[in-house]
Amino acid sequence: MAFQFESVLITGASRGLGLEFVEQLSKASPSPKHIFATCRSPEGDTAKNLRELAANHSNVTIAKLDALDKQSIENSAVAVKEKLGDEGLDLIINNAGVGAPEEFLQATNEDMIRVYHTNVIGPLNVVQAYYSLITKAGKKKGFAAVINISSQRGSCEQTFSADFFPYGVSKAAMNRMTRAFSFDLIVHNVIAMSMNPGWVKTDIGSQDAILTTKESIEKMLIIIRSLDKNKNGTFYNYNGNRLPW
Amino acid sequence: MAFQFESVLITGASRGLGLEFVEQLSKASPSPKHIFATCRSPEGDTAKNLRELAANHSNVTIAKLDALDKQSIENSAVAVKEKLGDEGLDLIINNAGVGAPEEFLQATNEDMIRVYHTNVIGPLNVVQAYYSLITKAGKKKGFAAVINISSQRGSCEQTFSADFFPYGVSKAAMNRMTRAFSFDLIVHNVIAMSMNPGWVKTDIGSQDAILTTKESIEKMLIIIRSLDKNKNGTFYNYNGNRLPW
Repeated sequence: MAFQFESVLITGASRGLGLEFVEQLSKASPSPKHIFATCRSPEGDTAKNLRELAANHSNVTIAKLDALDKQSIENSAVAVKEKLGDEGLDLIINNAGVGAPEEFLQATNEDMIRVYHTNVIGPLNVVQAYYSLITKAGKKKGFAAVINISSQRGSCEQTFSADFFPYGVSKAAMNRMTRAFSFDLIVHNVIAMSMNPGWVKTDIGSQDAILTTKESIEKMLIIIRSLDKNKNGTFYNYNGNRLPW
Repeated sequence: MAFQFESVLITGASRGLGLEFVEQLSKASPSPKHIFATCRSPEGDTAKNLRELAANHSNVTIAKLDALDKQSIENSAVAVKEKLGDEGLDLIINNAGVGAPEEFLQATNEDMIRVYHTNVIGPLNVVQAYYSLITKAGKKKGFAAVINISSQRGSCEQTFSADFFPYGVSKAAMNRMTRAFSFDLIVHNVIAMSMNPGWVKTDIGSQDAILTTKESIEKMLIIIRSLDKNKNGTFYNYNGNRLPW
């Protein structure tokens, strides 16, 4: 059974993986009825490409959402709810995140907190703020989903170095979060899953990476579109393999 | 080969598991030459039992260490180094931590940050501040160790609910931290391991718990005394079984 989501929220949508999600979904056939693309500065230079996409696709709505600002997250949920009317929200893609390459001896407390706030508390606040909308879709249609864009560095089992320390630690925390709230959400037919996008040419992945954003998103969308309840509370690689915690 | 540590640092030593570690180690035969027992308020009412132990055992030294205050951690390391003279520190037990029972919808950002700071950044700062002392012991004696007192709730695989959310997420992050710095420390013959103390009658575990602090610490000390390098970067249960991440 294919997961035909009619509405989707994507955070961190002004560039990298988030922008590519919006681009591929807006060009898909059929394209979701509502694509809510959020970023920190919808009016800023960094959102130029996203604004162009929205200008050419009437189903793309841009909203302001800063992972470090809970109020902005709650405000975005009010705006999205207004647009959706009586419908729930079918899919949340928690994509916004920051990198942090420091090795553990160099990691500062400020970085540890900033990265944890952005990569863990931000997505938590999104699910808290959109809880009524995502569970409404789950109850109404029998299927909705929250996808947390994590990292292979969030896998304890597959960690073999002390570098990217604040980032890797935050992604392991994100995975534990996914696992925890999956047990609450599934009661309302909402699946929660963490995904590793692979090593992608983005600001976080650097230009040394092996995947383009196009390849990574194409593969992740295949997995998202074929989601089933057996995958609830798990961690998957972009290529369709399950990852160890 | 038994791990005969001659010096040990225990954080959160004024009560619960930390106090029991100090008590059992001070009464062991042989007892370590130096037991550094740290807590937030060495002069406060909550440290009364610890002060009594120190009064009766000359190898027990109390030092102030607040997991939320990096400067206090660095100050404690200076005091410990003075006491140790030319010796390194053989064993660190990162035991200080706080609980947080909130379910994920109720978790506040303030709690998420406070618990992460105490349970993850605190132990990180301890290893950063004591790095030269612990690696000195590893290099000199060929064996030293950092034990992070984690929780079964830090295991993604063994998480089946959305409660104790800030706590469980912090402990998964702690496990990823253990794993990461184990690859740095082992180069200096320092083992790093996370341990689940079991469900213990403490402030965090409540009086409904199944284990006394005495039972939990007895079993954990058996594991610590039989540590070997194959356990580096792993997560063990108090009963000697390996836990999944």
